[in-house]
Amino acid sequence: MRVTLADIEAARRVIEGVVLDTPMLPAPRLSALTGADVFVKYENLQVTNSFKDRGALVKLASLSEAERKRGVVAMSAGNHAQAVAYHAARLRIPATIVMPVTTPFVKVAATRSHGAEVVLEGESVADAQASCERLQSERGLVLVHPYDDPRIIAGQGTIALEMLEDVPDLDQLVIPIGGGGLIAGNAIAARARKADIEIVGAEAALYPAVWNALHDGHRPIGGATLAEGIAVKNVGKLTLPVIRELVSSVVLVDEAQLERAVNAYLTLQKTMAEGAGAAGLAAMLAEPARFKGKRVGLILCGGNIDPRILASIMVRELERDSRIVSFRLTIPDRPGVLGIIATRLGHLGANILEVDHRRLFLDVPAKGAKLDVTIETRDGAHAAEIMAALAADGYAPAAIETASALE
Amino acid sequence: MRVTLADIEAARRVIEGVVLDTPMLPAPRLSALTGADVFVKYENLQVTNSFKDRGALVKLASLSEAERKRGVVAMSAGNHAQAVAYHAARLRIPATIVMPVTTPFVKVAATRSHGAEVVLEGESVADAQASCERLQSERGLVLVHPYDDPRIIAGQGTIALEMLEDVPDLDQLVIPIGGGGLIAGNAIAARARKADIEIVGAEAALYPAVWNALHDGHRPIGGATLAEGIAVKNVGKLTLPVIRELVSSVVLVDEAQLERAVNAYLTLQKTMAEGAGAAGLAAMLAEPARFKGKRVGLILCGGNIDPRILASIMVRELERDSRIVSFRLTIPDRPGVLGIIATRLGHLGANILEVDHRRLFLDVPAKGAKLDVTIETRDGAHAAEIMAALAADGYAPAAIETASALE
Repeated sequence: MRVTLADIEAARRVIEGVVLDTPMLPAPRLSALTGADVFVKYENLQVTNSFKDRGALVKLASLSEAERKRGVVAMSAGNHAQAVAYHAARLRIPATIVMPVTTPFVKVAATRSHGAEVVLEGESVADAQASCERLQSERGLVLVHPYDDPRIIAGQGTIALEMLEDVPDLDQLVIPIGGGGLIAGNAIAARARKADIEIVGAEAALYPAVWNALHDGHRPIGGATLAEGIAVKNVGKLTLPVIRELVSSVVLVDEAQLERAVNAYLTLQKTMAEGAGAAGLAAMLAEPARFKGKRVGLILCGGNIDPRILASIMVRELERDSRIVSFRLTIPDRPGVLGIIATRLGHLGANILEVDHRRLFLDVPAKGAKLDVTIETRDGAHAAEIMAALAADGYAPAAIETASALE
Repeated sequence: MRVTLADIEAARRVIEGVVLDTPMLPAPRLSALTGADVFVKYENLQVTNSFKDRGALVKLASLSEAERKRGVVAMSAGNHAQAVAYHAARLRIPATIVMPVTTPFVKVAATRSHGAEVVLEGESVADAQASCERLQSERGLVLVHPYDDPRIIAGQGTIALEMLEDVPDLDQLVIPIGGGGLIAGNAIAARARKADIEIVGAEAALYPAVWNALHDGHRPIGGATLAEGIAVKNVGKLTLPVIRELVSSVVLVDEAQLERAVNAYLTLQKTMAEGAGAAGLAAMLAEPARFKGKRVGLILCGGNIDPRILASIMVRELERDSRIVSFRLTIPDRPGVLGIIATRLGHLGANILEVDHRRLFLDVPAKGAKLDVTIETRDGAHAAEIMAALAADGYAPAAIETASALE
């Protein structure tokens, strides 16, 4: 059952001309950020915006005529669902996708738009799993597993072949780990092509299933993560032995690092990464010494992130950089004061985003009021200058945490 | 002075291996959106994140030893400044960049980080222009004009050579117009390589300088635009004759179309376009019939957009899609009511983003209150369902315009 380089090369011939050989480009601003020489493989530019296109097509193309007629079933609310639905439609194979009932409607609609039948069942993944197995046996459908399948592993491994053709002298590949299909396939391909390349895994700190398996650890698993694409509780039976053998280490990345990585891809590299897609970069931010001075290949494996979440991340990063600051002023409660302060802020170059004027706080004199202001500044120095000017004016500005509608 | 295909081919040899031959990829989701067969040239992936790298390098590389020693001057607060500063530093040519004093500090810092001297002068572009001319004559510097220079035009024209090599059978190129350097160079290159290709320009409706020149029109010029990169008041002396001869039409794009295009690049194509960079796609949204069924090449010419502006665009699009909705409820003013409503919203699947509870409105009974709520929904149908449920509960929900801090 062990997947070989020959399997991956065969998979490549299957996907050629259908799945994109995505760009592999130097990322000078990420290099400056991390101190390494970074190259990015843009798998977010695939038709369904993740690497899942590769494995799904390889698996579907391997089915017999009879199997194609009966159809396939997959369980996923994410990128795997899109990829299976899209390629099954292309090959005229009936596809059934099982999703939990809580799946956002846009994802259901996107999957249906590819012509797949969507079965909403179960509150949890475990419930959906049972429903998926029932459909398999009742209708004789072929299961397209998201990672624990040799065809899927071989399909995902085609990425490393492309990366090493474009940039042969990479020292390291940093690869997100969910169920392990992506890293297993690419570790096999990369190590077969370049024996001394180092494979580093990036796993969400909230879902350290592989890390626990490798280290005989008992870190708790679960919780809300930005990287829902790699929030997997179970280790793959086929993928774990490969990871044990070929992956030199697994870096755990926390939510703040994932957020920073998503924001860095967007603002520095001008591209949209979902949390799981940015996990490799997050690992570089988590343990920079491990990568410093090396030629590092990152697989930006998916770009499907909710726009509201992304907007929220961007605003929070601006707040961290003091480009958006909020403070409370104590002001005399008489007509015209708000006008004076607003004019003053304008002269100081501050762009007012939000104002909340209250007279009803208990800790101000009856003739006083509090004014909460959120402004946009040029940078941290500018923010400090504005606060100093307001203090000199006697308004006693006190920084407050913002309660942005987006957070 | 007329730039020829031979000039552009020579320019290509100059930039080869230094400036990126950026990806040119099919964009199936933009194709579905527009009804055309769309291919995108990702110039936002250049080192300084715009096509300006090309012309700047070609111009700088053409200077004599004596000119290189004296140095260059350019006037820009935008992408041209970054590109000149970056490539001048690479070639060890001293660069002076004149910017208006109002330029955001991040842009000043970015330009300085490349080693350029930044001169902040003038409230307006005209003031900065005068300062630029003074520096030229005082210090004997060579001006690197952003568009009206044969080397610059030839440099920008290299894009079309790459596009047509990757996708030879394009029917149309849609190209943003500011001063006209980008469209002039690429019109020359593309028409020389494929005589029947149609070149369509995309100009901001607030800055219709070229449109006025072509149509003998008198549309007003000016105003705040998302596409500040093409907000140019003057038509280029070298570029206009080329546009007259080779460009079949110029589409004016309004701010709403630019915003939709930026959002479409981000959410559908997973890439970050600045307003000017998305102008070509905006033209397709403005006049879809012109492009329908054609094989269209878009130059995504720049990705330098302020994260706050981008976050704001994303949130507004969610509001337009009713995925974020705000409404005002009339509620009895007694303890526990807010808890009841919040619980009810949770059961309806609404994610509460913002709540504003007020007792002080004049149009409510003394025993009543108003509650303004902003929620996130799955989609428009879900939003309607929630509003109906609240109406049935007797809260008389009335839709209100959101006043998001980001707008």
